[in-house]
Amino acid sequence: MADSRPIGVFDSGMGGLTVLSELVRRLPNERFIYLGDTARVPYGSRSPRTVLRYSLEIAAFLGQSDIKMLVVACNTATAHALPELRARMSIPVIGVIDPGVRALLSRTKSRKVGVIGTRSTIKSGAYETAIRGIDPGMDVTSLACPLFVPIVEEGWMNKDFARLAVREYLTALRDHGVDAVVLGCTHYPLLRRAIESEFPSFTLVDSSVEIADAVTAMIQERDAASAGPGSVRILVTDVTEQVSDLKRLFFPHPVETIEEVVVPELHV
Amino acid sequence: MADSRPIGVFDSGMGGLTVLSELVRRLPNERFIYLGDTARVPYGSRSPRTVLRYSLEIAAFLGQSDIKMLVVACNTATAHALPELRARMSIPVIGVIDPGVRALLSRTKSRKVGVIGTRSTIKSGAYETAIRGIDPGMDVTSLACPLFVPIVEEGWMNKDFARLAVREYLTALRDHGVDAVVLGCTHYPLLRRAIESEFPSFTLVDSSVEIADAVTAMIQERDAASAGPGSVRILVTDVTEQVSDLKRLFFPHPVETIEEVVVPELHV
Repeated sequence: MADSRPIGVFDSGMGGLTVLSELVRRLPNERFIYLGDTARVPYGSRSPRTVLRYSLEIAAFLGQSDIKMLVVACNTATAHALPELRARMSIPVIGVIDPGVRALLSRTKSRKVGVIGTRSTIKSGAYETAIRGIDPGMDVTSLACPLFVPIVEEGWMNKDFARLAVREYLTALRDHGVDAVVLGCTHYPLLRRAIESEFPSFTLVDSSVEIADAVTAMIQERDAASAGPGSVRILVTDVTEQVSDLKRLFFPHPVETIEEVVVPELHV
Repeated sequence: MADSRPIGVFDSGMGGLTVLSELVRRLPNERFIYLGDTARVPYGSRSPRTVLRYSLEIAAFLGQSDIKMLVVACNTATAHALPELRARMSIPVIGVIDPGVRALLSRTKSRKVGVIGTRSTIKSGAYETAIRGIDPGMDVTSLACPLFVPIVEEGWMNKDFARLAVREYLTALRDHGVDAVVLGCTHYPLLRRAIESEFPSFTLVDSSVEIADAVTAMIQERDAASAGPGSVRILVTDVTEQVSDLKRLFFPHPVETIEEVVVPELHV
């Protein structure tokens, strides 16, 4: 039976549009509502408690649109809020970490894997916990790369500058014998070329591709596909100057407007 | 007559501590209350309306501590909120832009000046407006340098990487004949060495030094100095992992604790 209810997707900002982009490509008949919390981005430098509160507020807000599934397209929010979101919502909630971890583990040969992300994602240990939950003997090196997001947002992904930052951060991983690296931040797929050119030996796992696979599989499993037509709404909490530039950077599909909304505060 | 009421200082985050540091050095007998809005940093990528709301909320919050003066140690907040803050508060409110502009104009010989800052500060045109208000014929080039803040916060100020970013951004200023540049962001003084080594011909104006001069002058004028002892309280809206690292980076004075506070929302 067709289920025409929309799929909710959220991120701290516009980066989650890399995930939405993959989802739209795979599931063109679905209706998507994306919320980018641009008034409070970046979550990567907030405390876990604050990230949890923001995530619950957004889930409550998107819940009002009768969504059939919630995709947490933000590594930091997945790290700090996924169990609580699952406990509170009666619909499936898919985070960005588990699908990436499963792909990572299937692709390493050296059994030495790398996780890169924002400070908060790395500090949370969420990827490491997920990896060891599946394979306790895996050698995991986690590394925060705080400059990658601003480099991408500045559009400097293909400059020498990006390659220098990549080298500065990732040499330690290579020296340790890591052969597979998960891009634990939605912005990082845009640095794929810079990373591959500096470190051709790495197999890179793109979480946005993996989460889109997971969502597609879950929709098939539950027989919850929409009969179409598909659509995309993009909401943000602050229409900043950057919003439309970043939309173009991360989501190369036509969308009529970007709507500004207010997400009510919860007192948790 | 001595006035022992504290001086309130605020910034979107920890960067304003460069201003506080100068203030404490000049005015060791004063009591300072600093508020860093680390739960909502960076203001530089928010809309003007949002920055105004946050600034009014913080002013109201600090106003409860019976401050004798409010120092807006944030270029973005100064750009978007200074007139409104002055209209609403019965105490002097000093922003970071005017003192920097006066110093800039006194130091250029080529009559071509540069302003560098965050996207939002530059977009606001606040420096340009202030410059032309004093000297309508001045040749002003304004330039957003969004990567400078994350480079400083990563502690990479003295790496090749910082010099490459400096060159990438500032070559256009030099080519245009600019001889004096105001560092229109509280983080930028930490890049002074990198800028000077790439562009020795620039005279750099450090707003934190200039605002400290302005505050000192105003206290003398009003005969409002405190008899001492001086003290410093540092408040933040989110105690993130980075808070104590940044405190060390920007404020090399002893402070017992960093306190977390909640700034109530205003509905404006």
